Amino acid sequence: MASASFHNVMPQSTGMASREESREMMAIWPDVVRDLTDAGRHLDIPDATKWLAKVLQYNVPGGKKNRGLSLVYAYKMLAPRDQLTEDNIRLARVLGWCLEIFQAYLLIEDDIMDNSKIRRGQPCWYLVNNIGLSAINDGILLEQTVYHLLRTNFRDKLCYVDLMETFHENTLKTVMGQTLDQLATNFGQKPNLDLYTMDRYNAIVKYKTAYYSFVMPITLAMYFTGIRDPEMHRQAKTILLEMGHFYQVQDDYLDCYGDSEVIGKIGSDIQDGKCSWLAVVALQRATPAQRKILEDCYGYDDAEKAAKVKQLYNELGLPTTYSIYEEESYNLMHTHIQQISRGLPHDLFLNFLERIYRRNN
Amino acid sequence: MASASFHNVMPQSTGMASREESREMMAIWPDVVRDLTDAGRHLDIPDATKWLAKVLQYNVPGGKKNRGLSLVYAYKMLAPRDQLTEDNIRLARVLGWCLEIFQAYLLIEDDIMDNSKIRRGQPCWYLVNNIGLSAINDGILLEQTVYHLLRTNFRDKLCYVDLMETFHENTLKTVMGQTLDQLATNFGQKPNLDLYTMDRYNAIVKYKTAYYSFVMPITLAMYFTGIRDPEMHRQAKTILLEMGHFYQVQDDYLDCYGDSEVIGKIGSDIQDGKCSWLAVVALQRATPAQRKILEDCYGYDDAEKAAKVKQLYNELGLPTTYSIYEEESYNLMHTHIQQISRGLPHDLFLNFLERIYRRNN
Repeated sequence: MASASFHNVMPQSTGMASREESREMMAIWPDVVRDLTDAGRHLDIPDATKWLAKVLQYNVPGGKKNRGLSLVYAYKMLAPRDQLTEDNIRLARVLGWCLEIFQAYLLIEDDIMDNSKIRRGQPCWYLVNNIGLSAINDGILLEQTVYHLLRTNFRDKLCYVDLMETFHENTLKTVMGQTLDQLATNFGQKPNLDLYTMDRYNAIVKYKTAYYSFVMPITLAMYFTGIRDPEMHRQAKTILLEMGHFYQVQDDYLDCYGDSEVIGKIGSDIQDGKCSWLAVVALQRATPAQRKILEDCYGYDDAEKAAKVKQLYNELGLPTTYSIYEEESYNLMHTHIQQISRGLPHDLFLNFLERIYRRNN
Repeated sequence: MASASFHNVMPQSTGMASREESREMMAIWPDVVRDLTDAGRHLDIPDATKWLAKVLQYNVPGGKKNRGLSLVYAYKMLAPRDQLTEDNIRLARVLGWCLEIFQAYLLIEDDIMDNSKIRRGQPCWYLVNNIGLSAINDGILLEQTVYHLLRTNFRDKLCYVDLMETFHENTLKTVMGQTLDQLATNFGQKPNLDLYTMDRYNAIVKYKTAYYSFVMPITLAMYFTGIRDPEMHRQAKTILLEMGHFYQVQDDYLDCYGDSEVIGKIGSDIQDGKCSWLAVVALQRATPAQRKILEDCYGYDDAEKAAKVKQLYNELGLPTTYSIYEEESYNLMHTHIQQISRGLPHDLFLNFLERIYRRNN
């Protein structure tokens, strides 16, 4: 499974508001960079500071900013009216940028590990000007600027420790998920199909993607609003993990069956030997002879072999299985949102759900 | 300059106490691992947890633990008698392990970036069992366990935020130093000797090594003791940065002039084109013809060229320059320690100083 790229998770109904908010976020980006590279901070090492500005500029603002935008959207929905001052909304946007910088950090390191070439329509950072493995350090540089921004902007707030801990906990969960994924794919060698079980798939998706992409933006918004009730956090986490899982299954399906014109890339999960939802369901249903096809053809950079795998997927009826799964999951999540009892606005989650249901990109 | 390996910084007079303390630290290491890999923590991903245990075991306890031991030593010296309970000493040791895990994280990433082969007498982690670039993720895993240990052990202490911030600030400083170093060595391409100035050298040493190796252990001990007075921290930082600088200059000198039997490795700063103290002083003094030798011979994997550089160092009288520098620095640091006025025990710093002065390994 390729990590879900999480496009356009902003609620459809707020499409215009979202574009407007995206502009507002961009408007404070120069301030964020200035805060981090202020000449007064590291007066004796101006070259390193200039380099940091470059790393930030190349890697952070070019994304779709969906995590950051979700955070700001959730904050506006959750905060009591008297809390929605200009200052606080600005701080929510800074927090949104923290999340975007964190995401850029993960992407820099992931692209090195996966030997990726293109990210957001431009060469991956480690491929720019022969930076090479030194880019590992640049990723860590970005990670640390997050804590610097938290310190300079939230140090006197009650939520300061909660925010730091949220970043720590979600980083740990994400790298644990990455570890699981690497163990399953044998560190980029031949995938070990014995490990491609539904349990393993569910665990990888939960840790590697769902936490930081779905749970984390809302958790941060809740803490900044002052919501610390563990039961409210538990309820939010439960439904957001479901959505994250749903989203990743869609992503895996679209990688094989989506219109490459619409999704903007040509899927390669089969060739890359990813632990994808389709592969896992296929393995569950395959006869020994069909399993042999997967053993022989899954995870090779060979168009003919990939075509054989896709043909097997069709024979096993996976598109139908997916349609049923999609509708049942939607209904289940809808029910679960209705069961949220602890005062969190159902609309927040319903909006997210509507946005991702039956997406084709 | 190779990053100082910081051997045996424990005060000589406490050599025996240090060996004893090293045993005490080792005695709690299994508890630290258990805390981090407790089956209850990530019940649904036992494989990732087992992997984490492996990463910890291979990379952390095999070092000399000098940073961790310095921290415990400083804590015992700084804490008022009634604070020195068994529980608190145990916590100081856990904090010592946090520092050692943090160090292991930096070493894993550095070894990948520098294409190193051997670390602490065994293959670098990324070279073990074809782990390769996935080891980037393992380093980050270690980094995050530090914050996990802080959370489980210090969350209810007043120093909790100070400890977290100390790790963040020193991580940022260290990666900024690494950036400076990479800019000077042109990301491992041909070194740019125009950048090998004493100012640049001083800045690299300060950020890349002195902060995390010298300032950080004492800062953590001070915060755990409850010392938050900024002036006390400033005074400690000032002298510890001097010592860190002194230590790195020694390291650079010994890389070229030390007895390889005694220092336990064969120096290669000249071949590696490092921004070493010797190279910087040589460039300061070189005539245009001598500089040409450096341009032609510095930074090549070629024994003859390296020998020419060493001959030039001799002609420029660098061993004498070093001896004078060593003695003057010692006297200056001695004076600066006497000037510490804010209640920090002079013996703490004097002991560190005696231990590193005129070392030959």
